[in-house]
Amino acid sequence: MMGERIYLYDTTLRDGAQTQDVDFSVADKIAIAQDLDRLGIDYVEGGWPGANPTDDAFFAEAPDLTRATFTAFGMTRRPGRSAANDPQLSALIQSRARSVCIVGKTWDFHVDVALNIPRDENLDLIRDSIAALRVAKGEALFDAEHFFDGYKRNPAYAASCIRAAFEAGARWVVLCDTNGGTLPHEIEAIVRTVIEEHGIPGDRLGIHCHNDTENAVANSIAAVRAGVRMVQGTINGLGERCGNANLVSLIPTLMLKMGYETGIRRADLPLLTQVSRAFDERLNRAPNRHAPYVGSSAFAHKGGLHVSAVEKDPSSYEHVEPDAVGNHRQIVVSDQAGRSNLIVRLREIGMEVDPKDERLPRLLDLVKQRDSEGYAYDTAEASFEMLVRRELGEVPKYFELLRFHVTDERRYNALGKLVVESEAVVRVRVGGEIRLEVAEGNGPVHALDLAMRKALEPCYPLLGDMRLSDYRVRILAAKAGTAAMTRVLIRSANGDGTEWSTLGVSTNIIEASVEALVDSFTCKLFKTGAEPRR
Amino acid sequence: MMGERIYLYDTTLRDGAQTQDVDFSVADKIAIAQDLDRLGIDYVEGGWPGANPTDDAFFAEAPDLTRATFTAFGMTRRPGRSAANDPQLSALIQSRARSVCIVGKTWDFHVDVALNIPRDENLDLIRDSIAALRVAKGEALFDAEHFFDGYKRNPAYAASCIRAAFEAGARWVVLCDTNGGTLPHEIEAIVRTVIEEHGIPGDRLGIHCHNDTENAVANSIAAVRAGVRMVQGTINGLGERCGNANLVSLIPTLMLKMGYETGIRRADLPLLTQVSRAFDERLNRAPNRHAPYVGSSAFAHKGGLHVSAVEKDPSSYEHVEPDAVGNHRQIVVSDQAGRSNLIVRLREIGMEVDPKDERLPRLLDLVKQRDSEGYAYDTAEASFEMLVRRELGEVPKYFELLRFHVTDERRYNALGKLVVESEAVVRVRVGGEIRLEVAEGNGPVHALDLAMRKALEPCYPLLGDMRLSDYRVRILAAKAGTAAMTRVLIRSANGDGTEWSTLGVSTNIIEASVEALVDSFTCKLFKTGAEPRR
Repeated sequence: MMGERIYLYDTTLRDGAQTQDVDFSVADKIAIAQDLDRLGIDYVEGGWPGANPTDDAFFAEAPDLTRATFTAFGMTRRPGRSAANDPQLSALIQSRARSVCIVGKTWDFHVDVALNIPRDENLDLIRDSIAALRVAKGEALFDAEHFFDGYKRNPAYAASCIRAAFEAGARWVVLCDTNGGTLPHEIEAIVRTVIEEHGIPGDRLGIHCHNDTENAVANSIAAVRAGVRMVQGTINGLGERCGNANLVSLIPTLMLKMGYETGIRRADLPLLTQVSRAFDERLNRAPNRHAPYVGSSAFAHKGGLHVSAVEKDPSSYEHVEPDAVGNHRQIVVSDQAGRSNLIVRLREIGMEVDPKDERLPRLLDLVKQRDSEGYAYDTAEASFEMLVRRELGEVPKYFELLRFHVTDERRYNALGKLVVESEAVVRVRVGGEIRLEVAEGNGPVHALDLAMRKALEPCYPLLGDMRLSDYRVRILAAKAGTAAMTRVLIRSANGDGTEWSTLGVSTNIIEASVEALVDSFTCKLFKTGAEPRR
Repeated sequence: MMGERIYLYDTTLRDGAQTQDVDFSVADKIAIAQDLDRLGIDYVEGGWPGANPTDDAFFAEAPDLTRATFTAFGMTRRPGRSAANDPQLSALIQSRARSVCIVGKTWDFHVDVALNIPRDENLDLIRDSIAALRVAKGEALFDAEHFFDGYKRNPAYAASCIRAAFEAGARWVVLCDTNGGTLPHEIEAIVRTVIEEHGIPGDRLGIHCHNDTENAVANSIAAVRAGVRMVQGTINGLGERCGNANLVSLIPTLMLKMGYETGIRRADLPLLTQVSRAFDERLNRAPNRHAPYVGSSAFAHKGGLHVSAVEKDPSSYEHVEPDAVGNHRQIVVSDQAGRSNLIVRLREIGMEVDPKDERLPRLLDLVKQRDSEGYAYDTAEASFEMLVRRELGEVPKYFELLRFHVTDERRYNALGKLVVESEAVVRVRVGGEIRLEVAEGNGPVHALDLAMRKALEPCYPLLGDMRLSDYRVRILAAKAGTAAMTRVLIRSANGDGTEWSTLGVSTNIIEASVEALVDSFTCKLFKTGAEPRR
């Protein structure tokens, strides 16, 4: 089995486009198709020409793919029409796709109820459509809809449907778990029967799974182990309901753990993390930090004893090398932090500290103390660094926020519309100078951010390059006899896209926000080596 | 196999607490343990007494669980100490847990490198610790760390470790895929060997999987099929790196598809969706709409032919009944479908509306419009009800907030301490009267809440019975060319514990908060049938 070839078929742009909340533009589709091609995916399914304006426009401007086969999706001809006379099939044939995949029924119940035609006629639909596409395009694929549910109820009929497609010349017959409810051992058993009893060879079979039981990846692997040689899926598991099989998880497992070859060159496998994250960025979704292989936490280590062991021998704590998929190791600090964990974390912010350094216990106590107050430093590395360096006396006093005053008021704006406007006044000491500034913003924190910039930028013009990129608030449940604490997390970004996170904790949301803001400005000044004003 | 009992062991509060971005407070831990108990989980692992202040405080206030076994986590005794003299084991024994689970090494490499002791001595560590705990607590469990990786390298040694635990009387020997890299077919094969060749019966074996290849659920199922009878996992798959096995996905598969019994009564299975979503709300994370079984999109269907077919026979398009897990079908896109969906939602808030009611299209447009603005009414049923009833003219004008003004200022308090104080002034019309009031609070929203109560309570004394129980803020990603929107969710509670949720959306956090506050007061007045002031 080692070294055998698995074909990868991406349906992000078609089945993935069914996801609630996802709308691809033509430009999105072009960029995603090019990313998939660059990675080395064998088939890129672009959509359904004739089904909607976006897909029509995309197929009209079809991108030039260098390695992937650009594929169109459609369905078997309508009952009561010849394949040659079916407008939908004609649109597929006319499209600029190099290959066409059509879906057809294989569950007797759906033939009876949804198509409402004799079961034998459905076999004709499949045969005629595949044959016509094969002649016209050279390659046709058949998606066997509801195959596993159909096979469980009426194996003979489901098998006759896929045999019709196979005998009509389908390059791939793709077994679909359309409702997503089939379990891995069922998939494996049914695929084996299809190959052994119904005589369709594995190198003509594909698998298409949905994640409704969280088994889409395992189901795809089970089918491959049973013999199929093509896998359909989507980037990051996009897809309707619970999503399709996640190619980003499947690819490294197939290549690094199961020894299969795909169209992806080994040297290109590290592109995977980047392709996955760029895809989420394009959809304006935060990448899933816990995603297998490619998430930013996928190789994170937390907890004292454990971390010193990871340092000794990563391979005994990591199931694959993070580099192999373009990811990297991350060491985090938290409540669980032991001394060795702290040392590693300090190393990450560029501080080499000897394990016997007498300042370590003090720092560890400080971090633990802050943790118990609600400071979650694993999400705010910049605040962690500022905390430590301040404690060690390394951070100059760039400025001091002496006083602030924020007002939020509902009033009529210049257009006569009732709005809430926020205004902040700050009094800041910068070197020997006291600066009093005021600014208006979208909300109290925005106003404070702007007012502080007005006060600081004349002395530190570098701050003009940074902006707030995210702001999150969480209320920490009150401990007995105290007020609830508010935790504010601020993410800041430079013009070049580099980001850092800071946090603040207080019973007052404004105070917590100010703390995070001050850390963010201070971190920026410290990192750029700004000279403190005297 | 039908009807056999699988034991469920939840480690959300211990292994789940290792998740980056997650920090449980003691109050969180208590509430989550109670939810798990109510659902019917067999074991609730609370944490590691002695390891950190949060776990110490939690075990000191250990909740009274009615059905679940409250369990503590720890590790085998240290080398060179007797079990009786090991402070860590003593802390476990002294804890209020009814059962203890300890982790120990089973991979020879880790014994050599991490423990740095002779391999036989590790067997003594395991035996002594399990025996001591079993005597002291009546029940001990053994987590066999790195078992699968260890077994692949040195099966004899890994087997001798778990046999030591078994022979010392461990109720459960839990095989852990600590690094998360093992695939389902490997898990199944190794578990079968453990049972058949190493003689540990399946009803004494558990499985503990991580999701590093997106196979944690499938790996757990594979182990159960091979014979283990206990499954460890977490709510929503929380856990370090890529997470632990997701109990929320596993439970319905085990019970509804594989025919196993668990500690969860069939009639309680519909609690699952609520437990899953409440957990995310507690962590201030958006529930994953694509989550298997419990996600809001898990049973979503798009318009067109498909939907009428779903209505004819849901079972041919849905792998399980949504009701069975407390979820519901969602029909999207077509106006016709949207209308019946709306009727269902109205019924949920106690309004029976005829499908032909001429007000429905107007309501549907309103809800769609609000949805597109970021109002997520599925988390704020009270705001949904107020929206609909206001549109239908059913909500009296109890009061009108004419103007407000909030200030937040850093200043010295009466004790000479630098604090941030928030003060709100409101001008409210109640009947024919205009009331101007001011109040101070912990933050701007707290101050507004108090000021509004001062203005309203003299007219509506009922409001004295309610309080804010939670306040959450989420920033919604900006669409092209617009400012980011802020969504505020407020949870309010009556003295008797009944709760309701309201929301507000605006570019300004204060405006969004005020909107949610006004909805909350209005809802309270409406629900108690208050007479509006004239």
